[in-house]
Amino acid sequence: MASSPIWASRPRTRGLVLDVIRAARSISRVELAAATGLTGATISAVVRELMDDGLVVEAGRGGPTGGKPRTMVQLNPLARYGVGVQIERNTCVIVVVDLAGRQVARTSFQGVATMPPRQALPLVASQVDALLDTAAVRRDRVLGVGLVSYGPQDRRAGVLLTPQPTREWLDYPVARLLAEALGLPVLLENDAAAAAIGEYWMGAVEPNSTYGCIYMATGIGGGVVVAGEVYRGSSSNSVEIGHISMDLDGDECPCGNVGCLENYAGPSAMVRQALATPGLARRLALDPAAADVLTEFARIAAAADAGDAAARGIVERSARYLGGAAVTMACLFDVDTIVLAGPSFTVASSIYQTLIQREVDRRMFARRAHPVRIVPSVNGSDAAAIGGAVLVLQSELTLGQPRPDDGARSTPLGAAGLHRGSYQDGRAGAAAVPTGSLT
Amino acid sequence: MASSPIWASRPRTRGLVLDVIRAARSISRVELAAATGLTGATISAVVRELMDDGLVVEAGRGGPTGGKPRTMVQLNPLARYGVGVQIERNTCVIVVVDLAGRQVARTSFQGVATMPPRQALPLVASQVDALLDTAAVRRDRVLGVGLVSYGPQDRRAGVLLTPQPTREWLDYPVARLLAEALGLPVLLENDAAAAAIGEYWMGAVEPNSTYGCIYMATGIGGGVVVAGEVYRGSSSNSVEIGHISMDLDGDECPCGNVGCLENYAGPSAMVRQALATPGLARRLALDPAAADVLTEFARIAAAADAGDAAARGIVERSARYLGGAAVTMACLFDVDTIVLAGPSFTVASSIYQTLIQREVDRRMFARRAHPVRIVPSVNGSDAAAIGGAVLVLQSELTLGQPRPDDGARSTPLGAAGLHRGSYQDGRAGAAAVPTGSLT
Repeated sequence: MASSPIWASRPRTRGLVLDVIRAARSISRVELAAATGLTGATISAVVRELMDDGLVVEAGRGGPTGGKPRTMVQLNPLARYGVGVQIERNTCVIVVVDLAGRQVARTSFQGVATMPPRQALPLVASQVDALLDTAAVRRDRVLGVGLVSYGPQDRRAGVLLTPQPTREWLDYPVARLLAEALGLPVLLENDAAAAAIGEYWMGAVEPNSTYGCIYMATGIGGGVVVAGEVYRGSSSNSVEIGHISMDLDGDECPCGNVGCLENYAGPSAMVRQALATPGLARRLALDPAAADVLTEFARIAAAADAGDAAARGIVERSARYLGGAAVTMACLFDVDTIVLAGPSFTVASSIYQTLIQREVDRRMFARRAHPVRIVPSVNGSDAAAIGGAVLVLQSELTLGQPRPDDGARSTPLGAAGLHRGSYQDGRAGAAAVPTGSLT
Repeated sequence: MASSPIWASRPRTRGLVLDVIRAARSISRVELAAATGLTGATISAVVRELMDDGLVVEAGRGGPTGGKPRTMVQLNPLARYGVGVQIERNTCVIVVVDLAGRQVARTSFQGVATMPPRQALPLVASQVDALLDTAAVRRDRVLGVGLVSYGPQDRRAGVLLTPQPTREWLDYPVARLLAEALGLPVLLENDAAAAAIGEYWMGAVEPNSTYGCIYMATGIGGGVVVAGEVYRGSSSNSVEIGHISMDLDGDECPCGNVGCLENYAGPSAMVRQALATPGLARRLALDPAAADVLTEFARIAAAADAGDAAARGIVERSARYLGGAAVTMACLFDVDTIVLAGPSFTVASSIYQTLIQREVDRRMFARRAHPVRIVPSVNGSDAAAIGGAVLVLQSELTLGQPRPDDGARSTPLGAAGLHRGSYQDGRAGAAAVPTGSLT
């Protein structure tokens, strides 16, 4: 075997090849070279390395295209798994995702986020264990856990810098504790950033595109992905679009800013508006004391979809503000596409998509240069949890083998350094993690 | 001489080493290795390459530090030059900048932006020629011209996508025409993005930091730099912060959006407010028919600085909106620092800096993670023109030698591809451009 040139294994190259194989499902080396712009020699070396690691397998020959038939390669989806855990105010969602990005198991339960983390995290760990057992996934094939929750975060230290879901979670070492309870590496990540990267992994966007994601559950967050990597900024607390001001004379938000988007366009604001509309509140049997705002919000969204004028007015007002925020995102990040992700978009997807698209078409600064498409997430309500699992897979498979030269300067998007830091925290207290390749 | 490993010449590595040498003024190879995190062997190879190109020279020995004295290296600032040309509504500024980022010549003149480009560009070219002659800069040491102006732009094609400065500039091939007139490569760039990168080149920010720039001349623009490269997005029409909406019920802007920042906080808006304040307008002898809004604005800013309450009220209102926009920039891009650049900040720098800092300290989402510093530009009023020259130097020296593997995927910030595209447009019609190294 010819020795691989040193650049054959550059993480970025390896990641790119893996991304293209995943998106194509089945592809020849010649097609891979064409799709990536890499040389045939590089492709051969990288594919060989991926096959040695058990991640890619040869799979028959392609149809005749004039020359001799070509050997196709494809992912071995069952070679590795990632686990995603989302802790939200009302619900905890756990998913297991294979290398192809397919969800192979899922569970969700309520109440965990209202417990102190010392009590909640062992419960989450036992649910992860049970889910892996149920799905018959071998633990030595699980690369780790992406724990996704609210921002701001100290991602490297694995702690939340917000008193959400409750005050007791602030500054608590959630990543380390979950890693200790599970014996698996844990990566803390912002929910919206996770949702954003999940779209890329699923092949829903072009490999080289710059796209944004607006994520709406009980709150509103965002993520931007540039050429397959999350835009991070200086501390991974980026694209907090729910907390940009829509009105400098607006009310103060607990975050410290005034007139935050979330307080005009988010589910809590909409439920408040609906409760203040007596006919509507009665018609939809809204409960002013309901703990789970998403259930109440879903009734409003369903009524809007069914043509209730009052409900529709509330959703349209929300969409107008979200449209304004989408224009700001496009104006600042110059994105091609904005994905609407998360449970609250899922229940009223078509109204939001139509109205936000209209605002962006009219108002976006660089519309002479290119359009911006508004699309629903391919990952539905579980986009953040799936994205958490995907980030672990991406981190381990494509960014997981830094070479001296690649590590010297943090990547422009700053991802690799922080992944490692979090992982090491996790590993410190964890059982030995398999690192050898599977055969 | 040992053969250089292939990664020694990776543009990013080369650029990083050059950046650190520039910032340090004089540095040993050992210190370079420590500052960059690169190995000694890589540093030796890169420094040798930079010396072969005439960009770096050895310069004596460092003081005793316990071991043997070390040979210091430093930039050879006169080895290469870049030219920056800014075309603004009222003024055209031309600067010549050496490799150390020092301005070695400058001129400015009015009227060119109100001419059609067919007439204006040859005039600009003759001024560039005259400036190079006056400064006795050899043309074979000039790497090219950074032409900076308004967004949106088609940077690759070298055309403006805005009817500014006048309708005739829209869709006109400005980069190609100036390149033909000058016989030098021309790179079209957004003025605010250029101003942003100029700060980095001058060593005013840390090499790995993520920082933003708000640029205010007659309009308001922005730029974000991540680890030494401009954040570009999908078409280099990013960070157009003057056209984010501060009020969804605000007036329509010619850009298509409503309630744009520029229309509350920009010099034109402030001059309008001052003219509507009769006592103030009379006191400052403002001219409602003045063509040059910056002169009128400077009077307001100077009066505010001198303690005129009405003038100060107008500047403070502008600063409040800019503070809100700075919070949005910090919230979305997660920057460490925001630089206030351009002529309109220069005349009222301390008021703006204080008030914007206060807003950011109070309202920024991730302030538990890190503070955001608001600082004035090191490049004063000419930040955009200097940045244009710097971008040409940066592009040619650090991104100018793509290797097959580096070119395969556009860099995450998308810089290299577009630089080349513009240059080739410029070169197509230009006289031969020297590419050999100087000895």
